[in-house]
Amino acid sequence: MPRYAIKIEYDGTGFSGFQAQNNVQTIQGALEEALFNFSGEHSEVYASGRTDAGVHALGMVAHLDLEKSVNPENLKNGLNFYLKEKRIVVLDAVPVADDFHARFSAIQRTYIYRILSRPVRPAIRFGFVHWTHHKLNIKAMEKGAEYLIGKHDFTSFRAVDCQAKSPVKTMDSIKITESEDEVIIEFSARSFLYHQVRNIVGALLEVGIGKLQPEDIKRILELCDRTKAPAMAPATGLYFKSVKFDSDIWNKD
Amino acid sequence: MPRYAIKIEYDGTGFSGFQAQNNVQTIQGALEEALFNFSGEHSEVYASGRTDAGVHALGMVAHLDLEKSVNPENLKNGLNFYLKEKRIVVLDAVPVADDFHARFSAIQRTYIYRILSRPVRPAIRFGFVHWTHHKLNIKAMEKGAEYLIGKHDFTSFRAVDCQAKSPVKTMDSIKITESEDEVIIEFSARSFLYHQVRNIVGALLEVGIGKLQPEDIKRILELCDRTKAPAMAPATGLYFKSVKFDSDIWNKD
Repeated sequence: MPRYAIKIEYDGTGFSGFQAQNNVQTIQGALEEALFNFSGEHSEVYASGRTDAGVHALGMVAHLDLEKSVNPENLKNGLNFYLKEKRIVVLDAVPVADDFHARFSAIQRTYIYRILSRPVRPAIRFGFVHWTHHKLNIKAMEKGAEYLIGKHDFTSFRAVDCQAKSPVKTMDSIKITESEDEVIIEFSARSFLYHQVRNIVGALLEVGIGKLQPEDIKRILELCDRTKAPAMAPATGLYFKSVKFDSDIWNKD
Repeated sequence: MPRYAIKIEYDGTGFSGFQAQNNVQTIQGALEEALFNFSGEHSEVYASGRTDAGVHALGMVAHLDLEKSVNPENLKNGLNFYLKEKRIVVLDAVPVADDFHARFSAIQRTYIYRILSRPVRPAIRFGFVHWTHHKLNIKAMEKGAEYLIGKHDFTSFRAVDCQAKSPVKTMDSIKITESEDEVIIEFSARSFLYHQVRNIVGALLEVGIGKLQPEDIKRILELCDRTKAPAMAPATGLYFKSVKFDSDIWNKD
């Protein structure tokens, strides 16, 4: 059964997250409907990550199986044709090995979180950035973020209803950049706990406005208690940016 | 009668342009309604430029008169309060001299035009960029743009229903920058003819894809005939960026 990987960009506004559910619009539901319209096959779409309602993706990857082999360029164009009324596009499509799995073959995922820091709420970037009227102390945020790099028990930054067996994860990097009126935080790790990025952003924002000191991030991490950590940052502002696999599946040569 | 200048950001999607008209949503209409809700006064809002439907603004400037003097910070916050359901925000408000006029006191206006150049249409930036699947030759576009700098008869790039008395304008600068998958063209001039920016972008896009040569821009300009020039680029992608006045009205010291 031929397997394909697709790279997807979507505007999460107006979708109830990635995962298919009855009676609501989801990214997975929209992709599987487009796939059926294109191929006549009911096939499931498996993604590298499951984003929540309002969370966007710049380069989400998913895999799918088809009964009949298709030209990957036709798959991409066919899906885009049936997705044309939706804010979802397929950027790339490639054939992959039978044992490739968008979720389990991933070795690194990267999220970004965009924060608009200025006195007035956004008009043009509404829904695409989280707004704070505070000026943020980037140096302090960077210092706080350093305590999270490496292997830790992230219980303090994990949703109470997180399904993962272990709260231990390895954070590869957290990079904070400023560009004009935005602060962008980029997180890379093999995998993340449920709401881990938004919970960390919530804490780093409190460091940025001076309500917490950078060292408080270490203290909160070590408490291993979600109730001792600051509130989660909103979905608006979060983007699933990219995912790496053990091989470069997009290289067509 | 105290006069105030306000700096405004708006998402032009869903508005029938800046200028007030009956029975449709306009930026001017929304601002005057918010102003009435804030002050109880029916006062007209005069802008530095009139944008078309779907055109955005990053820093449009307008002036307005009130019967009673108000704190400009209160004016800004009050307008933003009454605009909160709309994609319009007031970024700044300052008192200005009685003879200040947002339109007539302007000495330079700057527009940008954002072009997404990649094989697939936008999902996240839908409505905020003009999409072309072509790869653009930036060097050729820059060379073509050079012929438009300075004082010229811009009849070839002027809407047939343009109301300006003269088709002669002076283009101060056209800067083209590339960033990731976008090409951004920035135009500065004291004033522009109706549809001048979008008509020029339409022609520069044809140079970018190789359908026209840079020298064709000179030829088309000299023909002084709108019917001999390429089609206008769409409103999507156009932003009124900023406007300069003879004095720095925003400096509050």
